[in-house]
Amino acid sequence: MNTPATSAFDEAIALSETAPGRYRGQTHPGYANMVGPFGGITAATALAAVCRHPERLGSPVALTVNFATALADGAFELEARPVRTNRSTQHWVIELRQNGAVAFTATAITATRRDTWGVDDEAKPAVPAPDSVRQMAIPSPVQWVKRYAMRPIEGLLPMKWDGSGIGSRSRLWVRDEPPRPLDFASLTALADVFYPRVWLRRATMVPAGTVSMTVYFHAGPEELAATGTGWLLGQARAQGFRNGFFDQTAQLWNEAGRLLATTHQVVYYKE
Amino acid sequence: MNTPATSAFDEAIALSETAPGRYRGQTHPGYANMVGPFGGITAATALAAVCRHPERLGSPVALTVNFATALADGAFELEARPVRTNRSTQHWVIELRQNGAVAFTATAITATRRDTWGVDDEAKPAVPAPDSVRQMAIPSPVQWVKRYAMRPIEGLLPMKWDGSGIGSRSRLWVRDEPPRPLDFASLTALADVFYPRVWLRRATMVPAGTVSMTVYFHAGPEELAATGTGWLLGQARAQGFRNGFFDQTAQLWNEAGRLLATTHQVVYYKE
Repeated sequence: MNTPATSAFDEAIALSETAPGRYRGQTHPGYANMVGPFGGITAATALAAVCRHPERLGSPVALTVNFATALADGAFELEARPVRTNRSTQHWVIELRQNGAVAFTATAITATRRDTWGVDDEAKPAVPAPDSVRQMAIPSPVQWVKRYAMRPIEGLLPMKWDGSGIGSRSRLWVRDEPPRPLDFASLTALADVFYPRVWLRRATMVPAGTVSMTVYFHAGPEELAATGTGWLLGQARAQGFRNGFFDQTAQLWNEAGRLLATTHQVVYYKE
Repeated sequence: MNTPATSAFDEAIALSETAPGRYRGQTHPGYANMVGPFGGITAATALAAVCRHPERLGSPVALTVNFATALADGAFELEARPVRTNRSTQHWVIELRQNGAVAFTATAITATRRDTWGVDDEAKPAVPAPDSVRQMAIPSPVQWVKRYAMRPIEGLLPMKWDGSGIGSRSRLWVRDEPPRPLDFASLTALADVFYPRVWLRRATMVPAGTVSMTVYFHAGPEELAATGTGWLLGQARAQGFRNGFFDQTAQLWNEAGRLLATTHQVVYYKE
């Protein structure tokens, strides 16, 4: 497989350093959402700022991002600050500003990974292999969806918006398009690839947007390298919907069945 | 039921304001853990600082806390800062310092709740009622455990540490002891009441400590009031253990079966 050295993803998360830990970035038209950029690419950019920081210790274990407002298309300023460095863990505070106002906050934890006992308790579900699932040609009005190859297995976007929904679970094979070797930044963006659960649960399209997302990285550098440009199996479902907010709990495995990340978000919805 | 006006919980989360949004607190011996205080009480104190802030909008929807180090017993300084206030949501950044160093960071989101369509997708499991489950007399060396009444249903702390564990799920009825009307702060602390999943999964006691915890509040003020001093059903399980970190995903329902909170954490473990 011929993988280009850079891709729209690399362009989108690119940052220029203006001072130690301070960066300038720019939203990318290829990752545009309805309003502003795809949240996953903003989260990925925040983590990329941590990963490239000269004082970084180890690799990401946890990331929480809070979307304080819809970003405007254009330039932004990002600050990533290590607020506490221990022997094997490091705590980060991240802030993104546009026109002087806070648009996004995040916290991250990086750590040196050690060899320990381990097991995946949440096993990869038995699903058809990626090659036997038809790729979705998504008639999407938004650009970011085109940056991913998606092969949905269950819980597709409803074809009829008739209020008939009963469940909130989706499963799909997904990877970057064009294929790009998996890293912590792209895994972060992939954690946000699921459309709003409220659309599926109600078969009703209502305004919805992620307010906060957390990603726990079970994969270390070795599992990322072993995954490469392969497909990820994504599974997402909601737990509760009430008073304008619902949550999503999701998992991402590689084709070999390794749990790479678990992720959660709380999402605003209207009506 | 005779509920005291204040309790050890109220004492533990008490703060004195030193400047707008800046508070001074003190760890409470009644909530002591092996080293420093119970993480749940620190998380609850951080949320209490947000709740009492004069600029607060609405009620908590999400909280993420990061334990940058084990707190020392004694005084601490807490700052809660609204970094973005929208029409119906507000974003908070919280920092706790001891002896001038960052010991704990957090972010929170508060929002005005609105009447919308809603449903609990994660239904309360069928379990025996609290009255028919025996209360656990925990021979615990730590104080905080005594601040809770616990009636375990499944996934009890192993009696034999023989490496025989097979699953990571626990279910228990739990409430403050003495009973105290549920609020956002006590619900936060209850989200951290589960012992480390790695002990159950391996039937092996290894050093373990929460690094980051997120709570999504499905309950608004009405559900809290309806729950009062009643029992909560807590359910927790792990999804993946690898290279010194595992995650926990958990739910808390009230006796009537309402999903009050979903919560996740990533936990450090040794060996």
